[in-house]
Formats: sequence, structure tokens, C-alpha cells
Amino acid sequence: MKIAVMGGDGFIGWPTALHLSEVGHDVHILDNLSRRWIDTELGVQSLTPMDSIQERTRIWHAETGRRIHFNLIDLGRDYELLKNWLGEHRPDAVIHFAEQRAAPYSMKSDRHKNYTVNNNVSATHNLLNALVELNLDAHLVHLGTMGVYGYSTVGAAIPEGYLPVGITTESGETVSQDILYPANPGSIYHMTKCLDQLLFQFYAKNDALRITDLHQGIVWGTHTAQTRRHEQLVNRFDYDGDYGTVLNRFLIQAAIGYPLTVHGTGGQTRAFIHIQDSVRCIELALKNPPARGSRVEIFNQMTETHRVRDLARMIGDMTGAEIAWLPNPRKEAPENELVVKNDKFLDLGLSPTKLKDGLLSEIVDVAKKYSYRVDRSRVPAVSAWTKDIAAKIVHDPEGRRLKSVS
Amino acid sequence: MKIAVMGGDGFIGWPTALHLSEVGHDVHILDNLSRRWIDTELGVQSLTPMDSIQERTRIWHAETGRRIHFNLIDLGRDYELLKNWLGEHRPDAVIHFAEQRAAPYSMKSDRHKNYTVNNNVSATHNLLNALVELNLDAHLVHLGTMGVYGYSTVGAAIPEGYLPVGITTESGETVSQDILYPANPGSIYHMTKCLDQLLFQFYAKNDALRITDLHQGIVWGTHTAQTRRHEQLVNRFDYDGDYGTVLNRFLIQAAIGYPLTVHGTGGQTRAFIHIQDSVRCIELALKNPPARGSRVEIFNQMTETHRVRDLARMIGDMTGAEIAWLPNPRKEAPENELVVKNDKFLDLGLSPTKLKDGLLSEIVDVAKKYSYRVDRSRVPAVSAWTKDIAAKIVHDPEGRRLKSVS
Ligand SMILES: NC(=O)c1ccc[n+]([C@@H]2O[C@H](COP(=O)([O-])OP(=O)(O)OC[C@H]3O[C@@H](n4cnc5c(N)ncnc54)[C@H](O)[C@@H]3O)[C@@H](O)[C@H]2O)c1
Ligand SMILES: NC(=O)c1ccc[n+]([C@@H]2O[C@H](COP(=O)([O-])OP(=O)(O)OC[C@H]3O[C@@H](n4cnc5c(N)ncnc54)[C@H](O)[C@@H]3O)[C@@H](O)[C@H]2O)c1
Repeated sequence: MKIAVMGGDGFIGWPTALHLSEVGHDVHILDNLSRRWIDTELGVQSLTPMDSIQERTRIWHAETGRRIHFNLIDLGRDYELLKNWLGEHRPDAVIHFAEQRAAPYSMKSDRHKNYTVNNNVSATHNLLNALVELNLDAHLVHLGTMGVYGYSTVGAAIPEGYLPVGITTESGETVSQDILYPANPGSIYHMTKCLDQLLFQFYAKNDALRITDLHQGIVWGTHTAQTRRHEQLVNRFDYDGDYGTVLNRFLIQAAIGYPLTVHGTGGQTRAFIHIQDSVRCIELALKNPPARGSRVEIFNQMTETHRVRDLARMIGDMTGAEIAWLPNPRKEAPENELVVKNDKFLDLGLSPTKLKDGLLSEIVDVAKKYSYRVDRSRVPAVSAWTKDIAAKIVHDPEGRRLKSVS
Repeated sequence: MKIAVMGGDGFIGWPTALHLSEVGHDVHILDNLSRRWIDTELGVQSLTPMDSIQERTRIWHAETGRRIHFNLIDLGRDYELLKNWLGEHRPDAVIHFAEQRAAPYSMKSDRHKNYTVNNNVSATHNLLNALVELNLDAHLVHLGTMGVYGYSTVGAAIPEGYLPVGITTESGETVSQDILYPANPGSIYHMTKCLDQLLFQFYAKNDALRITDLHQGIVWGTHTAQTRRHEQLVNRFDYDGDYGTVLNRFLIQAAIGYPLTVHGTGGQTRAFIHIQDSVRCIELALKNPPARGSRVEIFNQMTETHRVRDLARMIGDMTGAEIAWLPNPRKEAPENELVVKNDKFLDLGLSPTKLKDGLLSEIVDVAKKYSYRVDRSRVPAVSAWTKDIAAKIVHDPEGRRLKSVS
């Protein structure tokens, strides 16, 4: 297949491109390299030394004889370039990673809120619009997030995208209907993924586009079979307060001998998946496109859930790190249950790598190995969800949150 | 109150600004005048001769001694201008009409789809973002549409925004929850109003903004008590295939002796409200803001429903016009029921002007009076919802749809 990987220079896009190239597909990356610019803006860098995309694709070719093509295109701003590229190459499938994906970054300031909304909505809509305009029946696989569901409180397991509900009619009978799971996003970033869902629903209905939306948990891990082939093929590892996920920040804190910083009670339950499994899921989704004219196919792409404090304890047990309890910069419930259905990928043959099996290698092969590159001042999460929360949190000169004043 | 009327140069914005000025509020219009540019793009004009906004506000001042201030600001593109204006004036309420509002225009081409999505999402998001950034507790009243509900098929009356549903938990019990009515938009334009809804929900939850969303039916009628005060205060009347609603196009067809063009079986049921009632509803909404911290307040702003073919018959009976049946350029169900709850405005004292009472004056005072200004080639609706539909519809040289080829 000819596959376009939008956002293929990113954390998940890069190993996905390598994997699909290795199994024989003709892979084309489109990326505006905005994440590299954001690294520059924030003064942060990947823990792992990450080469330019041009250099990485050159090394891949030298190692494997295979070509991955790179195109510098902004999906949100360059509609005409995008349309021309799609019209010329007419890919069989398009994988869409090309969005601003950090919740804390999306809440930093009004400028970051606007950037996230405009970038993500335009990128997704331009892509859909161009497919229709070109009459291009490519299977669109999008990376969504578990965060579109919000934090359900009714105690029902989260289904894969659609929720059966009973609606009472005027005559008093109850009719059952499948609806898109009601959205309850917790940040501007998560909200944009809810907007995406409505765009997908409309274009699947009006134009019979074939769309798969993967509601993904937090991706952890760094290496896949392909990124291990050469030091310079290494994947990025974000540990800063904006892009570093809670797990990555714990790993770094453990590696440099800092306490693991837990926000609030640490009772937030999150869903996780290993990068190798994420890549496999995307391949499984590519092999199982929905039929033309059917509703958007939705998978929950996650393999386990954990409370944040349990994660901290797990890493504490493996490394001896202590735990520090800090006020929560996010506006969210202090504790939440999270039961998620993920039968669809398991039925298609996914056999997951679990945290308890993979964490140790992540600590040794990645966090400790590159710990000399850590900039400690960048580890704390400093973006507050509201001005009220921001005003109550006190930081030390290195940006570490000290305590809440009320 | 100091009130900002975003999109106050438009069909509903203008009479709303006049009404609020008359009852003593300090009214400020913000508008980018994009609708006047779109008239130019399409080569169409209001049936009623419409003066510039500067001239209209000058005449209002001459007639009443009251000032309505006008500011040329693009809500979508000029975030900084918007924020500065709001920061300087700190209005008590903001009424938000400033969106591209025609479904056919939104479906014309890929460029029009992008324009509608980008304009509407950015305008709404910039406004919300600026209110939070400025810590401005203004009541935001937004004009949404009945079209966010889509065309329900389960036979339940459409509630005012929130639908009580039963959700079955893992343990087998059914829990009742209020959810935002599941969106099922029928065009790109309607979809943007569904995106708006999610933006409102997020900002009401995260930042406690006070927001009222008015899910409005098709607004008909031209005059209000204020626009009648001077010939040059007249409201706009759109009759072209993009911005003219079905009712306005019937009125014009009747006035110039053309048959009334019904699409498909004419079994589409639509909700209606008179412009004078729309203005009153907005005033009622302003007087009844939600409490800070509560969910988005939603009203259904409509007073009656009719099938398109019944409307055609009503106007045919009054004027002697015949009916012509044409293929439908929209992708929609040929027939739909529409039962809508609107108790909230009725309970607040709204006493509606019904079509059967107001139509005759609309025919005589508006359609016939200005019929010498009609450009007949602009009456037919030519935007098709998909390329397949477009390919099947044959037009005559004046753009009138003749018949479907299959
Ligand atoms: N990393 C996770 O834990 C996780 C979890 C759930 C969902 N996701 C989703 O998966 C996708 C990829 O995530 P990631 O961790 O690889 O993010 P990333 O930031 O590492 O990669 C995103 C890539 O997209 C590019 N991009 C952004 N906007 C673009 C635009 N307008 N035009 C072209 N390219 C653009 C960036 O330059 C970057 O290379 C995102 O959509 C994200 O929301 C990620
Ligand atoms: N007319 C109807 O029947 C109807 C029905 C339901 C809902 N509505 C909604 O009510 C609102 C007003 O409708 P209308 O019929 O008066 O439309 P209109 O097109 O006559 O007026 C909209 C006004 O907003 C301005 N505008 C658009 N984008 C802007 C931007 N980015 N910045 C500043 N100004 C901008 C336009 O120049 C125009 O003056 C719309 O949001 C529409 O969706 C209208």
C-alpha cells in the first residue's frame, strides 16, 4: 500500500513509519516539523538525541535499502499544498498524527489555546475536505484519545466509541439507540479531539469517507524493533512538564534521584499502551478498514489502566525513589474509576506488553542511559488549568511547584 | 447594560441592536462586514435597499438621539483587536451572531467549506478565550440552530438542549443522565454550530463562563418596530439560492410570478420564528442569564413547524402561485417529523407572531413592494451537497435547476 503518515516526525509517527516501511509499504511522511519548533520555544529537547528527519530517513535507507519520503507540509495552513500532494500521490491510506497533542501546552496561555484549536481543527478538516474534493477513497486512520470520553462517573465500562442509550418517546416507550459517547473533555487539547469526532461523523455520513478513529491511552516506551536497529533511528522521549507524560516524568525523576511528583492524591486513573503495541494496533486498523458508507470505526487503543499513585509506587519499588505530593494544576476530579473495553484489538490478535514487564528496560536502557542529558528545571508541570489555580501555586526559581497557598 | 453585538450588521444582529438601543442599553456592534463581501462575491444583494452600517447608525441617531457604535473587527482573525476592545469596554453581555450562516454556501466548494469551519470555529473560540483571559464575566448569548439536533427519527420531542438517557452500568442497573443532545448536523454550516456547542460546554465547565445558546429555527419576516421607523433603517432580505431561506424564496417567486420550487417531496419539516420574536427572545435570554458555574443554558428559539410543501401551499393559496417540484440538492431524508419543545420562552412570556398572521404583510410590504429589484437568476439553489448529486442535476443557462438525469 501507499501510505501517507501525517505527523510522521513525531513520537508515534516515526516508529509507525519505520514499521510500515519494514513490512513493505510505500511510506510518505508529511510533517510541518512544528514539534521541533515547540521544543525550541520551550527550550526543551528529547532525552534521546534525535536527528533531523532528513538524516533519520537517510539512515533508514542505508540500513534497509528502503526509502521513506519526507514532505514539509503544514496540514492546517497549506490546504492547497496538501491537496496537490494527495492528488498527485493518491495514497491508499492516510494516518493522521498531525496535531498539537499536549494538554498542558494547550492550557499555557490564550495564544496556546488558540494555536491548539486552530492547528488541530484545520489540520483535520483540511484533510477530510481534500479527500472529498479529490474523490480519493483512502482509508483515514486518526489518532484520537481516551480523553474524549472525559471521566465517566456512572460506573459503566467505556465502550468503543458508541454508547447504547434508552430514549423515551412522547408515547412513553423507550427506544434504544447507539450514540457517539457523550464528550466531556478535560483540556483544550482533548476538546479538539472531540471536535475531530464530529468532523469525522459528518464526512462519513455525507461523503462516505472510510474513517477509523483510535481512542488511544497514554503511550509509553521508547524503542520498537525498528528504532533499535541504529542509534540514530532512536525515537524521541519527552520528559518536560508539557509534553512529558506522567510516566516519563517519573522515570526521569527516578533516574536523576529526585522524588516522584504526584499531583493531588494521585487518584487519577489513566489508560496506557506501549509504543510497540500502538504501532501494531495502527497496522491492525489499516488491515481492517470500515466499509464505504458505514459509520466511523472506533477502537479503544489501550491495554491497561493504573492510578497515578500506583505507578509512582511501582517505579519507587524498582528504583528506590521517594514520592512527593504536590497540588494539582489541572481542574479534574481527584479520584476517578476507569474501566475501558478494548476487545476489538484483542480479538484481532494484539498481545500486549504490560508495564510490569517493560518498565525495567525503560529505566535502564533509556532513562538512566541518557540521564546525563536531563535538564532538571524542565521536569515540573507548570501549566495551570485556570488563573485561579495558577495564583494558588508557588514555584521555586527552577520552576518546581512548591505548594499551594490555600 | 453595555452590550456588544457581534455580527450586528447582519439580518438578526441589526434589528437586535436597534431594539436593545431603544430600550436603553449601550449598544456596540462588532462586525467584519464579511456578509457584504459575500454578497459581492456571489453577485447578489438584499431585496431591500440596505445602506452602509455607518449610514444606518447615523440615521438611528438622527431619529432617536441614541448612539450605536460600530467597530470593524474580524472575530476570527483579529484576536488581539477583539481582546483589546473587550478589555477596554468590558461589556456586561455579548451577543454572538458573527458566523457564516448559510448551509448551501458552506457546501459550495472546498474553499467555502474551509472558510465556514475556520471562520466560525475561530470566531467562537477567540471570543471565549478572550473572556477568560480578561477575567470578564460577561453573559455570552450565542445564536445556534435547530440543525444541531439533526433530524431525529426516534419520535421523541426535541428537548431544550439536554436529553435524559438511561445508561446501563456493568452491574446491570440503569442510571439516568442528562446529556447534550447527540449532534447530527446536515451540512458543514450546521456542523460548525455543533463544534460551538462543545466549545461552550468546555468553557462553562473549566472557566465558569455564563453562556446561553439559542437553538434557533428559520427566521422569517423583515420588519421590527424599530426598522419601520425610517426607510433607511430597513432590514436585509436575502432571497438568493445560498442565503435566502426557503420561505423568502417562495415569497419572491410568488411576487415575480414564478412557480414555487419545492425540492424533493417537500416533506422536510422545518422550525420557524418571526424576526420580531427572535429579537424578543434574545432580550428575554439577556434578562435570564445562567448562574456562574452552571451548565450552558439552552433554549429552543422557534415558535412553529411546517413541512416545506405546506408552506408552498400556504403561499400558493394567498398569491395564486403554482408549485414546481425539483430534485433535492441536499443529502437529507425526504420526509421528517419535527416536534420541538419551546416551553422555556413561552413561560418567560413570549407571545408569537405566527406565519398565518404575518405572511400577507410580508408579501405586500416587502416581496411585492421591492419586486422590481429581483434578479431572477439568483433565486434557484445551486449548491449540491455532494459531487454525485451535483452531477445528476441539470441547470438551464440562468442557473435554474431543471431536473435530475437519473
Ligand atoms: N503520545 C501519546 O501518549 C498519545 C496518546 C493519545 C493520543 N495521541 C495522539 O497521537 C498523535 C501523535 O502523538 P505523538 O505523541 O506522536 O505527538 P508528537 O507531538 O510527537 O507528533 C505530532 C507530529 O505532528 C506534527 N504536526 C503537528 N501539527 C501539524 C500540522 N498542522 N501539519 C503537519 N504536521 C503537524 C508535529 O510536527 C509532530 O511531528 C497525536 O494526534 C496525539 O494526539 C498521543
Ligand atoms: N437567519 C436565520 O434564519 C438563522 C436561523 C438560525 C440561526 N441563525 C444564526 O444567527 C446568527 C445571525 O444570523 P443572520 O441571519 O443575522 O446572518 P447574517 O449573515 O445576516 O449576519 C451575520 C453577521 O456576522 C458577521 N460576521 C460573520 N463572520 C464574522 C467574523 N468572523 N467577525 C465579525 N463579524 C462576522 C457578518 O458580516 C454579518 O453581518 C448566525 O450565527 C446564524 O447562524 C440564523
